[in-house]
Amino acid sequence: MKKVKCVVSYDGSHYHGWQIQPFQSSIQQVIESALSKIHKHEVKIYGAGRTDKGVSAIGQVFHFDSELNMTSDQYYKAINALLPADIYVRQVNFENDDFHARFSARGKWYRYSVNCGEYNPLEVNYCLQLNQTLDIEKMRLAGQILVGQHDFTAFNATPLDEISDQVRTITKIAITRQDDKVILDFEGDGFLRYMVRMLTQTLIEVGLGKLSVDQVKSLLDSCDKNAHSYLAKASGLTLMAVIY
Amino acid sequence: MKKVKCVVSYDGSHYHGWQIQPFQSSIQQVIESALSKIHKHEVKIYGAGRTDKGVSAIGQVFHFDSELNMTSDQYYKAINALLPADIYVRQVNFENDDFHARFSARGKWYRYSVNCGEYNPLEVNYCLQLNQTLDIEKMRLAGQILVGQHDFTAFNATPLDEISDQVRTITKIAITRQDDKVILDFEGDGFLRYMVRMLTQTLIEVGLGKLSVDQVKSLLDSCDKNAHSYLAKASGLTLMAVIY
Repeated sequence: MKKVKCVVSYDGSHYHGWQIQPFQSSIQQVIESALSKIHKHEVKIYGAGRTDKGVSAIGQVFHFDSELNMTSDQYYKAINALLPADIYVRQVNFENDDFHARFSARGKWYRYSVNCGEYNPLEVNYCLQLNQTLDIEKMRLAGQILVGQHDFTAFNATPLDEISDQVRTITKIAITRQDDKVILDFEGDGFLRYMVRMLTQTLIEVGLGKLSVDQVKSLLDSCDKNAHSYLAKASGLTLMAVIY
Repeated sequence: MKKVKCVVSYDGSHYHGWQIQPFQSSIQQVIESALSKIHKHEVKIYGAGRTDKGVSAIGQVFHFDSELNMTSDQYYKAINALLPADIYVRQVNFENDDFHARFSARGKWYRYSVNCGEYNPLEVNYCLQLNQTLDIEKMRLAGQILVGQHDFTAFNATPLDEISDQVRTITKIAITRQDDKVILDFEGDGFLRYMVRMLTQTLIEVGLGKLSVDQVKSLLDSCDKNAHSYLAKASGLTLMAVIY
């Protein structure tokens, strides 16, 4: 039995997220269906994490167990031959038995893209169309408050009974301007449900002058799930890489 | 009666091209339907040219006649309120009676994007996924042969009985590298059916070393519709601007 690790990129626009759901198409289901054809029996894959409906990925990771006598290149070709144009396995390699895409991950890198310029219908699935100016210096100051180890209860949507520990470490928040766009990069040991999108919208509110840096600190310190309702659209978010 | 000119951008991925066709969704039909609701009667629009199925636009232009007593800003808001997220009217202004989106146009600018790097499922509708290295110096030499006034019979798919004059002037072909991408910009007084896509694939063949610069000259000189069958995919093409 081999432990096969795959790095996959996908356009999430036309899927109901990563995770299998009844009566909805998901990335996981499409990949499992391709692998089941190759193996001639049902194959289950384990993702590094879920991505929401509409979220895309450049470097999502999953693993599966396989009894087939194939090289990593043969897996790569066989899987991609069966995947649609909007899902692409970039890399296949074999891992030790104790590897697990989710539990072995040390961190993740997410990117959120905001178009502050003119509305662009070609990017509507990949970039928030804000059409307003952002003060990125203020956003950076607010970002510094969020970096580090904190209880992110105020910035996630996981039901309280599902998860007890809402402490996470953000190692980096980088905010850069690229022409008309503002790019927000988040790196950390793990992100709770909706956390990146909630942090992003909070930083956007700061950039728009609607929220002060001090107010961001108060929100974080509150550890209160109902402290705010800032949530950026899924379409601007991309899972860039999982770090092992 | 006012002559209303609109600049429109759209993601062509999910349409069967600009032109109205029976039983297929087209950009023209969606815009006419929005305008007809605003006018409470059928409105016909006149585009600067057709774009093929899968081709997008940043600066397509159309005009229509309107009896309504509205400012250009009111038209802008009313139209966009009725358009889907993948079509956006960027600009509205009033023109003289003799303006015609197609016949008043002096030229067009098309852009073709090629990804020479790793396959990217997020760009599959906007950029040719070539995954091979291109020699852009050779492509530029071949491009120079195509610039100027020529009979482009060998580089178009218009049926011979539909058009007599296949002479067009290309004023500029610029080929630039942007990270892993090669961008081809074409400017000219007009382009025949499939002409930009045929020129692009021809230049890609040169960049791949499969066609020499001399062979491109022979193709052009042949004025023979059957001289070759190079045609780049629609998805990499964008109509950037119409020049008046």
